[in-house]
Amino acid sequence: MSTRGNLLYAQSGGVTAVINASAGAVIEAARRQRRRIGTVFAARNGILGALREELYDLGGEDLAQIRALAHTPGGVFGSCRWKLPALEADRAPYERLIEVFRAHDIRWFLYNGGGDSADTALKLSQIGAELGYPLTCVAVPKTIDNDLPVTDCSPGFGSAAKYTAVSVLEASLDVASMAETSTKVFVYEAMGRHAGWLAASAGLAARKPGDAPHVILMPEVAFDETRFLARVEATVEKIGWCTVVVSEGVRDGEGRFLAESSTRDAFGHAQLGGAAPKLAALITDRLGYKHHWAVSDYLQRSARHVASATDLAQAQAVGRAAVDYALAGRNAVMPAIKRVSASPYRWEIVPAPLEQIANREKMMPASFISKDGFGITAAARRYLAPLIEGEAASKWRDGLPLVAQLKLKRARRKLPAWKG
Amino acid sequence: MSTRGNLLYAQSGGVTAVINASAGAVIEAARRQRRRIGTVFAARNGILGALREELYDLGGEDLAQIRALAHTPGGVFGSCRWKLPALEADRAPYERLIEVFRAHDIRWFLYNGGGDSADTALKLSQIGAELGYPLTCVAVPKTIDNDLPVTDCSPGFGSAAKYTAVSVLEASLDVASMAETSTKVFVYEAMGRHAGWLAASAGLAARKPGDAPHVILMPEVAFDETRFLARVEATVEKIGWCTVVVSEGVRDGEGRFLAESSTRDAFGHAQLGGAAPKLAALITDRLGYKHHWAVSDYLQRSARHVASATDLAQAQAVGRAAVDYALAGRNAVMPAIKRVSASPYRWEIVPAPLEQIANREKMMPASFISKDGFGITAAARRYLAPLIEGEAASKWRDGLPLVAQLKLKRARRKLPAWKG
Repeated sequence: MSTRGNLLYAQSGGVTAVINASAGAVIEAARRQRRRIGTVFAARNGILGALREELYDLGGEDLAQIRALAHTPGGVFGSCRWKLPALEADRAPYERLIEVFRAHDIRWFLYNGGGDSADTALKLSQIGAELGYPLTCVAVPKTIDNDLPVTDCSPGFGSAAKYTAVSVLEASLDVASMAETSTKVFVYEAMGRHAGWLAASAGLAARKPGDAPHVILMPEVAFDETRFLARVEATVEKIGWCTVVVSEGVRDGEGRFLAESSTRDAFGHAQLGGAAPKLAALITDRLGYKHHWAVSDYLQRSARHVASATDLAQAQAVGRAAVDYALAGRNAVMPAIKRVSASPYRWEIVPAPLEQIANREKMMPASFISKDGFGITAAARRYLAPLIEGEAASKWRDGLPLVAQLKLKRARRKLPAWKG
Repeated sequence: MSTRGNLLYAQSGGVTAVINASAGAVIEAARRQRRRIGTVFAARNGILGALREELYDLGGEDLAQIRALAHTPGGVFGSCRWKLPALEADRAPYERLIEVFRAHDIRWFLYNGGGDSADTALKLSQIGAELGYPLTCVAVPKTIDNDLPVTDCSPGFGSAAKYTAVSVLEASLDVASMAETSTKVFVYEAMGRHAGWLAASAGLAARKPGDAPHVILMPEVAFDETRFLARVEATVEKIGWCTVVVSEGVRDGEGRFLAESSTRDAFGHAQLGGAAPKLAALITDRLGYKHHWAVSDYLQRSARHVASATDLAQAQAVGRAAVDYALAGRNAVMPAIKRVSASPYRWEIVPAPLEQIANREKMMPASFISKDGFGITAAARRYLAPLIEGEAASKWRDGLPLVAQLKLKRARRKLPAWKG
């Protein structure tokens, strides 16, 4: 006899161009299981909404709007950068969550996020078992940082990578045409605190040797000012201009970020931003070249208009698989993307245990970084190229992207307010 | 009896997503006039290439590649930021240009640029007449700044405006989903040193009152820190987050650029330029809100992948009209866009005398700026909305924009080197 009950979906951490596509896939797949799933809920602002019993009842949402989530960037239910305390330090929030789940007969919890969210899903699955509440927790992968282990790539990354490569290609044509009398060096800053996946993906813009970007700075390689300036100067002397891509997480030999502010986010991570203006100023100061720089920031992770069709398909596939796994009672797993074939590129979804995912970061392999530390290798290109394949167009109205309009009806509260 | 001879095309100033589309239209239209036009030349790096006798002979270019210019950003022949000296101060460069034109039998000169380029075309038409060399000069309009007079809008602006509105719309969905526990204020910086056209176009992202962007800062309105902070705070208190769009040219009441201030940010770091990071630091310092900021810089003017179909059509139309005007002997004119009907939007190309265009800047009408100075009016929306209409897709290969590959064969020199 199969479990019957309700399903809760929530979004966590930095959003992506396709996290709502995963949400739409989850909701649509769950709706097809009417004999087992009563109500599909979404938590407002991630796990915080679950703690606060702020739940959206999605029963009344139009199917057309649920499908429109596939072309809606941002996180439609709200996300959060808020990590549950360690289970050993404070059991109260975990017990509260189980209480909320019990009050709303939530038997399946799908948490769409990165490594921290996988950890939350794992702990909830454990505490559910301890408290004798039958709960199946599935993590749905998402991160533009591409740093989730086990899975071949993370939904959200391919679209951000495509935005990065397209933007660097386009802006480099601009610089090339201005270089004779104006800008000689263009510096583009990509997100990526610990791993250089997005900066590396800019390398796809170079179709043949010598094409831009000419220098890619990744956090995996300590910044060496002298070598960097020599490379920029040599490039400008050879072709007249130079495009530099820098990851926000690049550090010098002493481990200091090129661009560190004193603020930290809710997970205790340093808030970065500003490596590009620093490098640009350095270049003009030392080499005398006129510069321009761009920091695309949130644009790179919300640019649904230039999403990768591959990434979109994967974001939807992990959403559908998460519902399948949940209903099959596969507790504490995450649908992972497995690369079945490199050329032609083929992939499938397989379950991965959360123990292998929670709180682990996948770094870029050393074999992806060129010997000089300023570029990517053929192996990196083989890995990255299929992830940006295909154009998943936005829907447009009046020249602007059309996005989902949900009713977001709140579910009636059944418990006292959470005093967390 | 009609003139026979050769035609020279050149690109000037900051490039746009569609200046090459104008180039392609010029070249294709000129090729259809085989009985009158012998060779179509392009100057390398704008007027500098003409002075240096660095000309590309476009006769051998494949038509498919000329047509591919319609989806190729940047300036394929190279541009320049270099203004000829005043005619009264130094006639030598003007005489040299006529000498180059005479050597290559160039009877038509089409200069694709903004106000400075219109001035150059005007002066060349005058000196040609003075020196008894029959030359017809036509300016082809182009600028993302939209500051050319007479013409209803400038090719290149519509696509940059669309990039701006799309990016602000997408990133604002991101901020909205993060605001509960993370970023509350997002600041986007648009180009525009003297006029706020691009910052204003971000206002199109707001489909109903209260939608992002919530604050638009334009150079036409002196920056008032107290009022600005009060508006940001009120917005965050009301809806939980706030999107700010700032033009790079915004100044305070004493005329000082925000971006050029020597003050330090909230964390004691020297500001390295950029109105957005400066405002973002101010917001965190005074209001305590976590911020993110983006400076899209060259991305906004090279993002051909999200070009406006209206803009593309106009860029091609002015290119074709320029050839028509040139062959008709209409000297010292520019094809201007005339808005024939606002709704439905209809436009046509009309000739405008360069005297009315050279060295003049069109500012935004005061009626386009809302009374509080933080937004745009319904009149501004009516003007701007049609300019971003329609999506002119890139051509794609391997997930990346496909761009024209020209042979760029240099024409044989006939004169001694220019010692300018």
